[in-house]
Amino acid sequence: MKPARTPAPPYYACIFTSCRSETDRGYAVTAQRMIDLARAQPGFLGVESARDADGFGITVSYWESEEAIRAWKSHAEHQVAQATGRDVWYEQFEVRIARVERAYGKA
Amino acid sequence: MKPARTPAPPYYACIFTSCRSETDRGYAVTAQRMIDLARAQPGFLGVESARDADGFGITVSYWESEEAIRAWKSHAEHQVAQATGRDVWYEQFEVRIARVERAYGKA
Repeated sequence: MKPARTPAPPYYACIFTSCRSETDRGYAVTAQRMIDLARAQPGFLGVESARDADGFGITVSYWESEEAIRAWKSHAEHQVAQATGRDVWYEQFEVRIARVERAYGKA
Repeated sequence: MKPARTPAPPYYACIFTSCRSETDRGYAVTAQRMIDLARAQPGFLGVESARDADGFGITVSYWESEEAIRAWKSHAEHQVAQATGRDVWYEQFEVRIARVERAYGKA
């Protein structure tokens, strides 16, 4: 994976931080499916994801607007995944919605 | 690592996404030192970091204000690390400064 190629700010970020449980129950397939599905949503700008060997992971998705994030959160298939995530796949998680104000880097 | 325990929004996030080069040259020691040093800065609220087996990593630090982020960026020891990061440790990176508007999770 590479840093997402996002447009000039402002835009929005959804920072999803999680600790995986030891239970798989379809996790890997669903995680990939959710990334593919997110890419197809209106207002999607990019996604970055990393998980370390201890099961701690960060996924940041980037969106044109808060409305686009809300629409993705309420997507029917995503809602099923969110429920299973809360109950089965994640021991802990935090979701933060943030407005990106500025950005710089090395491409 | 666990999701950072941050106060109620608003607060600020510095999202640092990077691809490591194959060169070590003190990377591990400096990366840990920068996390320890960040924790000691005024306005620091928390940090989360994950890097996968392919060298792609995301570190998100949380701060009370943009001013706190700017002060940390200009810290002398951090500036040396940033320069080495750009030249030696990272093939690519992106830094995004964002204002966290809302948050929820499973503790």
